[in-house]
Amino acid sequence: MKQASIRQRTLGITFSKGEATACLWAPQLEKAELLLHSQQAVLPLEKDKWGYWRTTSKKIAPGERYSWRLNGERERPDPASLSQPEGPHQPSQALDPASWRWSDRSWQNLPLEDYIFYELHTGTFTPEGTFAGIIQKLDYLKELGITAIELMPVAQFPGERNWGYDGVYPFAVQNSYGGARGLQQLVDACHQRGLAVVLDVVYNHMGPEGNYLNEFGPYFTDKYNTPWGKALNFDDAWCDGVRRYFIENALMWFRDFHIDALRLDAVHAIKDFSPTHFLRELKQQVNELMQETGRPYYLIAEVDLNDTRFIDPLEKGGYGLDAQWIDEFHHALRVSAGQEPTGYYADFAGIEHLAKAYQDAYVYDGQYSPHRHKFFGTRAEQQPGRQFVVFSQNHDQVGNRMLGERSSQLYPFEMQKLLAGAVLVSPYLPMLFMGEEWAETNPFLYFVSHTDAELAEAVRKGRRAEFAHFHAQGEAPDPQAETTFEQSRLQWQLQQQEPHQTMLRWYKALLEQRKKQPALRQLNRRQLEVSHNQKRQTLQL
Amino acid sequence: MKQASIRQRTLGITFSKGEATACLWAPQLEKAELLLHSQQAVLPLEKDKWGYWRTTSKKIAPGERYSWRLNGERERPDPASLSQPEGPHQPSQALDPASWRWSDRSWQNLPLEDYIFYELHTGTFTPEGTFAGIIQKLDYLKELGITAIELMPVAQFPGERNWGYDGVYPFAVQNSYGGARGLQQLVDACHQRGLAVVLDVVYNHMGPEGNYLNEFGPYFTDKYNTPWGKALNFDDAWCDGVRRYFIENALMWFRDFHIDALRLDAVHAIKDFSPTHFLRELKQQVNELMQETGRPYYLIAEVDLNDTRFIDPLEKGGYGLDAQWIDEFHHALRVSAGQEPTGYYADFAGIEHLAKAYQDAYVYDGQYSPHRHKFFGTRAEQQPGRQFVVFSQNHDQVGNRMLGERSSQLYPFEMQKLLAGAVLVSPYLPMLFMGEEWAETNPFLYFVSHTDAELAEAVRKGRRAEFAHFHAQGEAPDPQAETTFEQSRLQWQLQQQEPHQTMLRWYKALLEQRKKQPALRQLNRRQLEVSHNQKRQTLQL
Repeated sequence: MKQASIRQRTLGITFSKGEATACLWAPQLEKAELLLHSQQAVLPLEKDKWGYWRTTSKKIAPGERYSWRLNGERERPDPASLSQPEGPHQPSQALDPASWRWSDRSWQNLPLEDYIFYELHTGTFTPEGTFAGIIQKLDYLKELGITAIELMPVAQFPGERNWGYDGVYPFAVQNSYGGARGLQQLVDACHQRGLAVVLDVVYNHMGPEGNYLNEFGPYFTDKYNTPWGKALNFDDAWCDGVRRYFIENALMWFRDFHIDALRLDAVHAIKDFSPTHFLRELKQQVNELMQETGRPYYLIAEVDLNDTRFIDPLEKGGYGLDAQWIDEFHHALRVSAGQEPTGYYADFAGIEHLAKAYQDAYVYDGQYSPHRHKFFGTRAEQQPGRQFVVFSQNHDQVGNRMLGERSSQLYPFEMQKLLAGAVLVSPYLPMLFMGEEWAETNPFLYFVSHTDAELAEAVRKGRRAEFAHFHAQGEAPDPQAETTFEQSRLQWQLQQQEPHQTMLRWYKALLEQRKKQPALRQLNRRQLEVSHNQKRQTLQL
Repeated sequence: MKQASIRQRTLGITFSKGEATACLWAPQLEKAELLLHSQQAVLPLEKDKWGYWRTTSKKIAPGERYSWRLNGERERPDPASLSQPEGPHQPSQALDPASWRWSDRSWQNLPLEDYIFYELHTGTFTPEGTFAGIIQKLDYLKELGITAIELMPVAQFPGERNWGYDGVYPFAVQNSYGGARGLQQLVDACHQRGLAVVLDVVYNHMGPEGNYLNEFGPYFTDKYNTPWGKALNFDDAWCDGVRRYFIENALMWFRDFHIDALRLDAVHAIKDFSPTHFLRELKQQVNELMQETGRPYYLIAEVDLNDTRFIDPLEKGGYGLDAQWIDEFHHALRVSAGQEPTGYYADFAGIEHLAKAYQDAYVYDGQYSPHRHKFFGTRAEQQPGRQFVVFSQNHDQVGNRMLGERSSQLYPFEMQKLLAGAVLVSPYLPMLFMGEEWAETNPFLYFVSHTDAELAEAVRKGRRAEFAHFHAQGEAPDPQAETTFEQSRLQWQLQQQEPHQTMLRWYKALLEQRKKQPALRQLNRRQLEVSHNQKRQTLQL
């Protein structure tokens, strides 16, 4: 029970040899049943000693709508549902991911060194706001020169407008994006063009609407508090069921959706004091899957702790993750470009910190951080450049501004070019945020489409309160308004106009150089010399 | 600022070269002053960038009563006070621990292998309930055959009756026990007799009464919850000041009080996700002090995580603690002796688990624990026997029973002898609990003497509620009643009576054999063979 199977998903409904197995983890329930909606059938389930309820049946076919009935009372969708065709509150739909016929046999994942990420939000990337829409842009992206698309989270959320971090069904692909099939099609199409696919997954919290997990079992613990309330339970009583839930999830993306890398959201909020940290167990399981399939898969963490334990190899006692984001490069770069040193930027001194980021990855690797009010960080001397992802913008750094301005709205044209260059000559893995390559002028705002009116109002108020001290700039746009979402869409027609055409040529040229010049492909920081001149605001690599 | 000085305490009032330095950590105060009560003087203090307020003066002599005045308003005792002659709510008293003239020059700490612990509670060990009282019993203890006394916590608590875990001045020795001087005298007397001294210290919480820490600075964080509420702040903003506070404390006991080992209370409740865990930093600092003084000091943890990271060496990424308690040995032993498998005993199966404890130290080293509802523990193959402390009773296991019964009240005489033998032939460090060697018949009850009436009532109610399901056995004794404390005192006169005389002879004989027989002194578990017979309830080493 402890180990998730690497060969197949076991949670939810799975198909094998002409029959279906239904499996639900709900260790503290007295009774659980499976409701098949089209047949109006009720299947009884039996619980094993670990709290997994199971039945096997030939009655369940892919496409069947189903729910669990808990203690003979409430009907709930499946926490491990692969499809929520009518959103988070309605029945789940059985789905067999193995029925997709892959055309990517010849695809080989890229070496991590060759990743050039392009972060995109499915809903606002194209007019369609779907995976199918993305497919139409793949030739463009290939020509641009990036090597991997990174999808912001696609787990089912309420409504049709969300960044993705409010997902409540980690196994179900957002219905309005095109669902599981749409994602498989997208990945297949990427691989056919030689593009890798990175998926952003959220294992540190659940969204505020449509989260029924508490009714199934102790998914949360009050041992730890997080910005989202009680922490997901990775080390308290019953934690094995929760750990398995997320490990099965990660394995599914690699195995059944051919995802090449996972971007693990804010792993510092995965609170786990077990002897084996959840992330380490995850890496061990992914290693086994790699053995089995013969394909490499990468785990990339968003983490703000400047602690190499996350990316240290398993044999050195680390969690073994392949790479991590470094926001500090971004902060130092922004301050060098003129960003006012307020908020978390207060810790950054501009060009000298940018030089440090080029040289040492972590800017704070043991110094006192005035913003954090503590000594902060460890040295990252042993870690090669391919373990760090850098960027001059991303969804968070843009969207967490009240008005969601991209660099195009904040910096002169030449400075924008410099920012692009700073990222693309770095000895790290570069990442672009969709549209920056043509200096998109639309903002990327914070938007939601909660169906719970009270929650929507709370989010609206929260957003206004957060930015209350910026009142001189007006009021924070309403996250719930459809216009806020529409304003955040990319304007592809800008590519035909100046100065956007020029910017796009600049990015293409930089990306080409990045791939062509051995000095730029080389991510060995030991062979890098960095010098800077504070007075003249110059930096030499 | 980050590193505590290993050479001297810096917090509170310290004396050097004819003058005194007063130092207070209070990073968020606007103003802090030092009040000297006998002189009715007010000394202004200056704050450095780390939040330490300081002044140097010739006005302050040892013995001076003083307080801090915070923001010109409240007067508070010193969180780093060495003496609270009138308890936790009244002014502190300056004290120079270096003025004690030690007579233990020739004392050399014992090898850890040779430790045989005798846990005692100063207040109930003797009729006097003081350190001076203990000194009168040292010859007896030496003759008994133990090699180290382990004092339950002595940090200042409210009133005169407390186990010690409600201490609120980690640097101040309980006034009613004899204060700092009394403790120095006791340690000196122990060392003159060749006995080591272990001190129980509490770095995981503060007592509920007389804790003014919050008024000084962010000593607590709401990132983590503990059984005592908010956790002490070891990794949140401003944590460096808190870490230093406790590290200075540990160093003080070794350096200024010649303590030989610290027993660190419930370290699993020290919540710290920093790159360098507080315990690891503590060990590094103690190592430096050992370099400086040329004396060995030990750190022994109470920890219930079955995770070797606490006792793994620093160079293997562990926290480097010298040893840890293993309650599981106790639980397995008790169930083997007939204890009903309820509560946390439910995880233990008797003789086969006792055999496992002898062989593997941790009974749960990866198996599913029904009581904890999760897979639990790591293997402890690499750890030598000297890293584990075992016992058949201790203050917790006795005192956390509603009626505080010792083994003498629970098991037949012959079984008590067997329990003693089981501990003393183990390949681990044995510990006795005061009085068990003569089968003391008095209980060791839970007692407090809070001066806050509401709190006393809350504790009383809490205790009754905790044991509500034992109502058949009567009501839980009132922790606040002086009689509860008096009933818990040892009855030394029993030593002259049977069957107590016989038991005492038995313990002495066992202890003598333990020290004499090479096979029993050898703590190498690789040379140990354990076999057991479930049916016949026998176990062979």
